[in-house]
Amino acid sequence: MKSHLAFSQLLLFAAAACLADSPKPNRDPQNAATDKGTSVAAYKDVANRIIDASLKKNDAWKKMEELCDGIGHRLSGSKSLDQAIAWALDTLKADGQENVRGEKVMIPRWVRGNESAKMIAPREFDLHMVGLGMSVGTPPEGITASVVCACDEEEFETHCKDATGKIVLFNNPMQVYDPAHGSGYGSAVRFRGKGPSMASSAGAVACLVRSVTAHSLRSPHTGATRYEEGVRPIPAAAISTEDADFIHRLLKKGEDVKVHLKMDARNEGLVESANVVAELVGREKPEEVLVIGGHIDSWDVGTGAHDDAGGCVIAMEAINVLRKLDLRPRRTIRVVLWTNEENGLAGGKKYAADHAAELKNHVGAIEADSGVFSPRGLGVDHKDDPTMKRASEQLRDILSLLKTLNATHVAEGWGGADIGPMKQSGVVLMGFEVEGSKYFNYHHSHADTLDKIDPRELSECVAAMAVVSYVIADMPGRLGE
Amino acid sequence: MKSHLAFSQLLLFAAAACLADSPKPNRDPQNAATDKGTSVAAYKDVANRIIDASLKKNDAWKKMEELCDGIGHRLSGSKSLDQAIAWALDTLKADGQENVRGEKVMIPRWVRGNESAKMIAPREFDLHMVGLGMSVGTPPEGITASVVCACDEEEFETHCKDATGKIVLFNNPMQVYDPAHGSGYGSAVRFRGKGPSMASSAGAVACLVRSVTAHSLRSPHTGATRYEEGVRPIPAAAISTEDADFIHRLLKKGEDVKVHLKMDARNEGLVESANVVAELVGREKPEEVLVIGGHIDSWDVGTGAHDDAGGCVIAMEAINVLRKLDLRPRRTIRVVLWTNEENGLAGGKKYAADHAAELKNHVGAIEADSGVFSPRGLGVDHKDDPTMKRASEQLRDILSLLKTLNATHVAEGWGGADIGPMKQSGVVLMGFEVEGSKYFNYHHSHADTLDKIDPRELSECVAAMAVVSYVIADMPGRLGE
Repeated sequence: MKSHLAFSQLLLFAAAACLADSPKPNRDPQNAATDKGTSVAAYKDVANRIIDASLKKNDAWKKMEELCDGIGHRLSGSKSLDQAIAWALDTLKADGQENVRGEKVMIPRWVRGNESAKMIAPREFDLHMVGLGMSVGTPPEGITASVVCACDEEEFETHCKDATGKIVLFNNPMQVYDPAHGSGYGSAVRFRGKGPSMASSAGAVACLVRSVTAHSLRSPHTGATRYEEGVRPIPAAAISTEDADFIHRLLKKGEDVKVHLKMDARNEGLVESANVVAELVGREKPEEVLVIGGHIDSWDVGTGAHDDAGGCVIAMEAINVLRKLDLRPRRTIRVVLWTNEENGLAGGKKYAADHAAELKNHVGAIEADSGVFSPRGLGVDHKDDPTMKRASEQLRDILSLLKTLNATHVAEGWGGADIGPMKQSGVVLMGFEVEGSKYFNYHHSHADTLDKIDPRELSECVAAMAVVSYVIADMPGRLGE
Repeated sequence: MKSHLAFSQLLLFAAAACLADSPKPNRDPQNAATDKGTSVAAYKDVANRIIDASLKKNDAWKKMEELCDGIGHRLSGSKSLDQAIAWALDTLKADGQENVRGEKVMIPRWVRGNESAKMIAPREFDLHMVGLGMSVGTPPEGITASVVCACDEEEFETHCKDATGKIVLFNNPMQVYDPAHGSGYGSAVRFRGKGPSMASSAGAVACLVRSVTAHSLRSPHTGATRYEEGVRPIPAAAISTEDADFIHRLLKKGEDVKVHLKMDARNEGLVESANVVAELVGREKPEEVLVIGGHIDSWDVGTGAHDDAGGCVIAMEAINVLRKLDLRPRRTIRVVLWTNEENGLAGGKKYAADHAAELKNHVGAIEADSGVFSPRGLGVDHKDDPTMKRASEQLRDILSLLKTLNATHVAEGWGGADIGPMKQSGVVLMGFEVEGSKYFNYHHSHADTLDKIDPRELSECVAAMAVVSYVIADMPGRLGE
């Protein structure tokens, strides 16, 4: 565990690191082969070397232990997020990375405090709940009210149009994962975002949302909510899928279900934080940058192992593996660990703003924020953009190098929340894809802990990220051109 | 929900019920076919009729909703157990069952109270815990101590021999279920029982036990512990498998892990309760009895849906289906819903004692206490006893009638805790077996709730129990002879 550094110290340290670690372009003989070919085939040997080295030995698990076990959760504005940022800076420096620095970001400090929800009629029953991030709290004595329930927008219109003085429960179930259609998270999560505002507009005094997961052991899942402009903010919490179903069954029988909700949650304004940045500086075109990374913040339940300690460590360790193999690509690979992804996206927005002038030289950005499972490939946010489509085609070639990892999949998909703000600058946005059947069992819940990660799968992710990053950063032509 | 009746009222009511519902042996024409044959083949039509009727419509789900949603948990000595017993008596009477009665049992009242466990060093971390049933509490200010850990008896000898002033953690993992070897519960559960006494003998001030499950989402699982004679009782709690592994990882790194444990648990002596009894009285040999049942009590986490509301309802509904089909077997089928299985077995012991003189006429006892999943068959507690072995062979024939349910499996196995005390009287003890891969995910945890039960599987269990009970009670020769 690291001590708690003030951010002024971090930034001073970062500036010093910048001066000390100037880029040292080299033309290592080991890179020679890759300079010759323009086709991906030329990278076959080096890709296999990277994969072998990653799978044989890497420091990713050690980093995960230090971050998840040693520091724990990393809620925006918490002491432990500051510790994690200090740890990341120290670790990247100890790994010998270049231009290690914290880039200042102002982020919201939302504090959960004590919280509970209890059914008090028709009988007493403790609900397994967790307040939604950014929710306001209840009055100190709590709120007691009858519950009305809707599974979707249509039911809301019929059952909850006048919810004056009531608690609205949104009980929209998430579909079970299947490989063809994915997780169903995108659809089910909508009520966590907009539900409290809908409920408030209908006169409700509080809002409960079914946890966004398809597999539960009375496990509540948090996540950010967002009050619409002009709407009176009301306290909002997730309850376990079991508890949502239970209340719903009682209501369908005509029972008057009363719940007592108590939440100390409060917003405490903005505090200083930082995006963590480190580089493997390019040997020929150091000004051209491939960004890879994850977000260093997490929710305050569990230890954010999958979400997103894993993404941070995959990126940190990918350049560590390359550096240890003395592989310095043509362009710069920049690791960015964004702050405040979960409840504000301040880090992602600030990075795009701080680096606005430089974004035209960003050849791409890969975000790892889907958990740590066997790597599958990349999602590319291309829609109908011709550059992005060309990039997709090139990536299909590049990912053929990951055949032994079964990680060759490229499809149109979402890049990632933190890299999203770079989209308008035309940066190729890529999401690091992994096997997705279990992620939402743990996501934003107390169960997102280190034991849920398989060290072998973590190493496979490091290998995949290292190969893809190296080839994109090293290939003669720019991605998408 | 039923009102809370005093037990004196229940017993008066039971006596009245006994007088009112005298056995009415009949020779219904529908039973005629079964009177002719001695072979199981003669029961094929009636078995199919029972299965069809059960799968088409039965009241099991309604009963489950009333018990689990309407009343909830049924901890020994709680108001809600009294409510459940009153509900069962009312329901069995409303179903038209005979000799419906409560048979008085004195049971322990153990009260959980508030409880918590928190790691306070090397960093703060809330542990997901649940006190073990029958544990003593901590002093009001709690106990704070360093943790020592053992995975098994051998490690206990080497790591915990002198645990003076420490908290001992038993971190023995339960194996993942596989169809060939079952659940691994029997082995892993041993430290929940004996661990606290081992720890106390080594000087420990408290004991933590890894939750006995192979699948967890930070879900603590309770269960009874038992202090050995002469040992100073120390507070004992289960923590989630994740938390046990976390502490263990820290200890292996040489950290001094300190935990603060606070438990208000207390034992409040004996209170009055009852076994619930109801009969489908035999038409020819009413004095010969087949007992079927489950336990009406549960732990105070979740709503004890699988453990063991399901077992009670399967037995209640099995005779209900037979009665509705006007199928009255040769012998009596007696439903018994035992009280206090979880933390004392007072109900099972008392039933065997109360009915000691009658046990020679008990042709068998089937306990359903393995959850509600697809039925698989019966486990028979036979060891080397020739009568039991013969019974097993006969049961193999009888269960061939359940081919369409895929419930034909008969093997040497455990009968059940509540029927165990009848063993020394030579009663054939049978455990109602179901598909077992998920039971211990929910068992004794907050997640044992109604939504975990599939109504179709519940109906299959009712069908299987009804067929097996009917044939054993009706066949010309006595089971095992």
